Amino acid sequence: MLKLFYSPNSCALASHIALQEAGASYETVRLDFRANEQRKPEYLAINPKGRVPALATDRGVLTETPAILAFIAQSFPQARLAPLDDAFAFARLQAFNSYLCATVHVAHAHRLRGPRWVDAGDAAAIAAMQKKVPQSVGECFELIEREMFAGPWVMGDGYTICDPYLFTVSRWLEGDGVDPARFPKVRDHRQRMAERPAVKAVLEEERSE
Amino acid sequence: MLKLFYSPNSCALASHIALQEAGASYETVRLDFRANEQRKPEYLAINPKGRVPALATDRGVLTETPAILAFIAQSFPQARLAPLDDAFAFARLQAFNSYLCATVHVAHAHRLRGPRWVDAGDAAAIAAMQKKVPQSVGECFELIEREMFAGPWVMGDGYTICDPYLFTVSRWLEGDGVDPARFPKVRDHRQRMAERPAVKAVLEEERSE
Repeated sequence: MLKLFYSPNSCALASHIALQEAGASYETVRLDFRANEQRKPEYLAINPKGRVPALATDRGVLTETPAILAFIAQSFPQARLAPLDDAFAFARLQAFNSYLCATVHVAHAHRLRGPRWVDAGDAAAIAAMQKKVPQSVGECFELIEREMFAGPWVMGDGYTICDPYLFTVSRWLEGDGVDPARFPKVRDHRQRMAERPAVKAVLEEERSE
Repeated sequence: MLKLFYSPNSCALASHIALQEAGASYETVRLDFRANEQRKPEYLAINPKGRVPALATDRGVLTETPAILAFIAQSFPQARLAPLDDAFAFARLQAFNSYLCATVHVAHAHRLRGPRWVDAGDAAAIAAMQKKVPQSVGECFELIEREMFAGPWVMGDGYTICDPYLFTVSRWLEGDGVDPARFPKVRDHRQRMAERPAVKAVLEEERSE
């Protein structure tokens, strides 16, 4: 049985939705970041990075959203969540997810995770990072809107593992001080995603106590 | 014909080595970052991100190191650069590459690319970022050394696309103010990598005028 470790409103939402869309049998374990559960020894034994998501499988634990998403697509091919027989198309999909992971999520993280990159006590540097987030995140979404988003889904006609990941990251826009109205395609995508039964079910579970 | 756009000493080295190891037919285009060639309109038409690597193929351009590396492994299966028929093993490999891309490279980038995340004129904040790099990069390599590196190659007995990527990133350690002697497995890996004919050939090309 697959077991997803997540915290609400984190990037683990992408993997959570993908499991649901794939029709996978899985269970979830919620970590409370306010109680710092991700840094407790029990969890560090599962994922030494102390982050989410982590996906426990019969063969071991997987981490990193792009890797987990591709694993779900490959493990449930009947769900058609990625072009598995076309190396070029698969690479385009992976490039999109890698951009979300290494550029967009990183830009966003400078708002609340500044102490990863400057001393926690340096309030001025942390404030300087926070101040830049609307610009850096906004520029990322300009590129997505203008260059990357094929429509109606991220990669074109087919719904893929890129879609729950973009949905997850685009939900952070308002908190990052970026107006989603600047990106009509991304905003429309977010609305259509929110109407999917799998997404509704996952959001309801993540909201429940 | 595949065409790799790179700049010397950048993360594009990983893709460059992987192409060579795969026995691919490819050509290279060198960008001079000092002349800001990566921001010129000719290159932005190829890669709107203005970064390297970019791999031009007959079907279009690919970006993002983890995506390009997996594409090379899948396109040249006879080179056995990834466990292509094992979704779990492939995901473990991808998780390693995603960590290098989204965490290790990002920590490193705070030394020279600070204006991505704070205003370029904020010298104090940029200095605060640079000051943290030895610690943040050092912690990444502690995790690699202790938890991730299987040996003798990154994933174990088989040489994979993780190896040129780790080699590429570990060559930045001294510049980041981190002593490689702290990480015996990573240091030994770097020495063995440097002796491979494919790596020698690529480094020689990148050094030439």
